[in-house]
Amino acid sequence: MSLHALTLATSGVEKQAYRNAMARLPAAVNIITTDGTAGRAGFTASAVCSVTDSPPTLLVCLNRSASVHPVFKQNQRLCVNTLTVDHETLSNLFGGKTPMEERFSAATWSTLVTGSPVLDGAVASFDCTVTQVVSVGTHDILLCEAQALRCNDNIPGLIYFDREYHHLYGKKPVNTVI
Amino acid sequence: MSLHALTLATSGVEKQAYRNAMARLPAAVNIITTDGTAGRAGFTASAVCSVTDSPPTLLVCLNRSASVHPVFKQNQRLCVNTLTVDHETLSNLFGGKTPMEERFSAATWSTLVTGSPVLDGAVASFDCTVTQVVSVGTHDILLCEAQALRCNDNIPGLIYFDREYHHLYGKKPVNTVI
Repeated sequence: MSLHALTLATSGVEKQAYRNAMARLPAAVNIITTDGTAGRAGFTASAVCSVTDSPPTLLVCLNRSASVHPVFKQNQRLCVNTLTVDHETLSNLFGGKTPMEERFSAATWSTLVTGSPVLDGAVASFDCTVTQVVSVGTHDILLCEAQALRCNDNIPGLIYFDREYHHLYGKKPVNTVI
Repeated sequence: MSLHALTLATSGVEKQAYRNAMARLPAAVNIITTDGTAGRAGFTASAVCSVTDSPPTLLVCLNRSASVHPVFKQNQRLCVNTLTVDHETLSNLFGGKTPMEERFSAATWSTLVTGSPVLDGAVASFDCTVTQVVSVGTHDILLCEAQALRCNDNIPGLIYFDREYHHLYGKKPVNTVI
């Protein structure tokens, strides 16, 4: 890891202006889950992206003041479940204050390698170990190496843009019988 | 910054399988630009996300073997320009091997604070200084603190999903005259 500090930066951007601009950056909606010695937990996140395929690594941003933070920190494994259009209610449930038991009882889950809950019917699921954590301001960036994958092709994705949900339809199945 | 290493991870995921799964994670399309002592450069990126609003920080992932990497590394400032549906050709231009002069001549640019090119008509532009760089595998994660913003409300976003472009229409203007 290399670090290069630039010290001249003094931000001229207000927090609310930044949030308004970020609302204009469309993002996939994901439910991030974990299970392990610290117990089971999950939260909704749009701050997820791919880093590299060598080794296959993605990242998830998590507020250190979130109630789920200590659980993820201790378990050091998680699953990124990318949501489909049927998951709006589930997204809201995992983005609110609902108790964990109630959140998980609203869907069907399985496991792959790490034991983190894998959402049945997700567009894609990335079952990962957390290999590194970088703290920036209020948040931790969790660097996550994929240990196993599950994909469901040809189902539409759920997007958050302009502070509302949108539905995104991908490629049609190649061998559709008409 | 805190780092927690987990050493037990040995990836069981093939590179191509990971890329196929990542193609199922919808993402906004952005052109990342810079200008400074190392010259002007730009590239297309979907691996962009918000980190925190305190201080207002987003991140951009960049392959260290990319031809533009040394330019961004030296300049330590960049602008994230989130594309609209009119920018498909521009996205391809900045994602290919076209010379820089030709890429930039295909659109109109201005500047805000850092001098990085700000794309006229972008959905949003985040003019940033790079405050930290974290290397992970083949890529650098550039942590970017916003120094100035520009937004164009009520224009549709460009999404990449299932290896093709999609158009995303946000909220309608509140005061539309019919």
